Amino acid sequence: MANVTSMKSNAPDISRDSLLMLAREAREAAKSLALTSGETRTQAIYAIANEVTGRVSEILESNIKDMSAAQESGLSEAKLDRLSLDEKRLEGFVSALKEIAVLPDPLRVLASWERPNGLQIERMATPLGVIGMIYESRPGVTLDAACLCIKSGNGAILRGGSESFHSNRALHRCVVAGLEHAGLPRAAIALVPTRERRSVSEMLAGLDGCIDVIVPRGGRSLVELVWDKARVPVFGHLEGVCHVYVDKSARLDMACEIVVNSKLRRTGICGAAETLLVDSACAQEYVSALASTLREHGCEIRGDNRARQIYPDIKAATGEDWSKEYLDKIITLGVVDGVRGAIEHIAAYGSGHTESIVSEDADAVAQFFRNVDSAILLHNASTQFADGGELGMGAEIGIATGKFHARGPVGAEQLVGWKYLVRGSGQLRP
Amino acid sequence: MANVTSMKSNAPDISRDSLLMLAREAREAAKSLALTSGETRTQAIYAIANEVTGRVSEILESNIKDMSAAQESGLSEAKLDRLSLDEKRLEGFVSALKEIAVLPDPLRVLASWERPNGLQIERMATPLGVIGMIYESRPGVTLDAACLCIKSGNGAILRGGSESFHSNRALHRCVVAGLEHAGLPRAAIALVPTRERRSVSEMLAGLDGCIDVIVPRGGRSLVELVWDKARVPVFGHLEGVCHVYVDKSARLDMACEIVVNSKLRRTGICGAAETLLVDSACAQEYVSALASTLREHGCEIRGDNRARQIYPDIKAATGEDWSKEYLDKIITLGVVDGVRGAIEHIAAYGSGHTESIVSEDADAVAQFFRNVDSAILLHNASTQFADGGELGMGAEIGIATGKFHARGPVGAEQLVGWKYLVRGSGQLRP
Repeated sequence: MANVTSMKSNAPDISRDSLLMLAREAREAAKSLALTSGETRTQAIYAIANEVTGRVSEILESNIKDMSAAQESGLSEAKLDRLSLDEKRLEGFVSALKEIAVLPDPLRVLASWERPNGLQIERMATPLGVIGMIYESRPGVTLDAACLCIKSGNGAILRGGSESFHSNRALHRCVVAGLEHAGLPRAAIALVPTRERRSVSEMLAGLDGCIDVIVPRGGRSLVELVWDKARVPVFGHLEGVCHVYVDKSARLDMACEIVVNSKLRRTGICGAAETLLVDSACAQEYVSALASTLREHGCEIRGDNRARQIYPDIKAATGEDWSKEYLDKIITLGVVDGVRGAIEHIAAYGSGHTESIVSEDADAVAQFFRNVDSAILLHNASTQFADGGELGMGAEIGIATGKFHARGPVGAEQLVGWKYLVRGSGQLRP
Repeated sequence: MANVTSMKSNAPDISRDSLLMLAREAREAAKSLALTSGETRTQAIYAIANEVTGRVSEILESNIKDMSAAQESGLSEAKLDRLSLDEKRLEGFVSALKEIAVLPDPLRVLASWERPNGLQIERMATPLGVIGMIYESRPGVTLDAACLCIKSGNGAILRGGSESFHSNRALHRCVVAGLEHAGLPRAAIALVPTRERRSVSEMLAGLDGCIDVIVPRGGRSLVELVWDKARVPVFGHLEGVCHVYVDKSARLDMACEIVVNSKLRRTGICGAAETLLVDSACAQEYVSALASTLREHGCEIRGDNRARQIYPDIKAATGEDWSKEYLDKIITLGVVDGVRGAIEHIAAYGSGHTESIVSEDADAVAQFFRNVDSAILLHNASTQFADGGELGMGAEIGIATGKFHARGPVGAEQLVGWKYLVRGSGQLRP
């Protein structure tokens, strides 16, 4: 489809040379951006927010061009929805930018201590350099990514989906204007002005060392391509096969609400639950209640044998089902023997992204939190909270399931990653 | 040489299958190690220290085997020195282990906060998994690496230099005994029982996903091989081309002491200075004083034209000299125009490892600390402090010049690395 639309468009293609020049300029600009004060970087983000507010009609006109081309080319409804903009969505973008603006400056002293010999030591945060952002046709990502990079003193090379070409250009004009308004180098946040796939492979090769890390955002095929071909580090995740485990101690009403929200609030996001695990000790009652609630909400269920013995009127899950990211109104349902069974199932089929335990038993929760090695673990809360903004970290540029961080002396302190432990009391994401 | 000695030895070679089995056992053992308490992991390290103290003669006998084989094979003096053990060195190892033991548990809550909706969030440190350690014939690394991994709940696969084969086996027996004494799985810290190079390439391929990160320690050829061939992340650095910049505001006596210590305390370590940069504003007086002091200590000097005009009796530095890691009694000497000139020189020729500024001018120091993007920056202190133990972080498994760390939502906070800023008052490393 990208080709179809690009043939329709009069969008300039870009030569490898001009792509490299753009990357080198971004690298140089990022170096000076790294030396600016947190106040200046914050001002730039407010200025970008103002630009968006002041150019609503210009942005929506560009979006209409993209939408009509996308409709002609027969883009799926889901993708059209992600592509489309209206005043309300733009307002949402603006408030998201303001959330980023008010975050504390990431470029600060992270720790400091003194040695017996009088040496005083600080661990100081520094930018990574230039972030290569490769994402689908979702214009809001252009603003989020740009402002998260500005906030953290990093440059960026943005390569959005072809269908969002005009919308991204309009939003990027806001970014450039905001940078200049704050006296920051406009080249620091570059938009790849092309719809050709080739620019992606050039970015994955690191553009001559100008890209320090790649962040992919989009469908599985895109992310797989990136993991497979990237010759620079990648911040991202291949898929979110997220689990909800309902323990025998769980309150059934809470369990039903959390399962429905985890699966169905939005089925297309990586934090959507794909598998429901029920404790065999409460399966007789809970499986039927949970399954019929999901059914009432129009969700297809694929169960294992133990689940189907209790609730026969559901499809049998195949081997692949248990590790599949449906991103749809489909869920696998399995019966496991207590929290240990859940831990083993998740270790076997999970993707290390996000899992939730519904339980009133502190020991079961502690065991789950200790033994499941996923990036985000929740207790009595929806997996759909798997989102930087929802965790209070400001907007996110992506969710990484990697583990690595180390600079300077790699001692025991540097040989650890982390995971987020989220304790709730039945919160649902509105 | 490795082959010569291995032909002499009756060391068993290891098949790919048994290497994989060893790796899978380490991976499984690491999972249970990850769930142990900090107290238990600390006990294991004390137990290992006791084992070393109790087996001094056994260890020294094994070392004698290695030393005689190494001497026959004509190993260099420097390498023989690194290989050799005596009671004093073993005592040093033991106290190093005790320093690791008393470190706070790295597997702790790193941060915690609450959301307006009542969600309570903790960022919890987790082990990386299994560390693949590839190092030269330096037996002490076997103990350091093993205990840093145990402290942080990680498994390890240790592949030491062939010449240290018998010494490593003896020290590894202490590690295994210590693990068992603390009730921890002995397989968590594995020693590759082979002298064949092939085991290295197998490790670089990740041993079927059993290795999460590779840490290379050794000569440039080894580290280059690792960077080039590793298919798993690497914690390390290619070289330490470290600089000392002497500002016009520097106290000359302090500058002389710091330069001599930075270059000559030990020339063979990565934190040894390789280049001395002198501010043109004080060059006339300082270049001669610094150069003659270095000369008195038997250091060869290679200077740029400006340095040689002031101090003619030194070789001219070639283009390659400025980016060379001598690891020897040789230093390049250049004259630069103030701190800005030093920053530009380091950006052009440095390796991002460690740099020191000698200065009494707070603005110059601030400019240096802000603008030089190396892992470790020092003020009025020797570059030879570039060492985890010296920075108070406990022993180190290596020094990384990479920048990456991200798990969970990658927000602005996750888009930063760090550097160490060290402020001193003329400290020399004894």
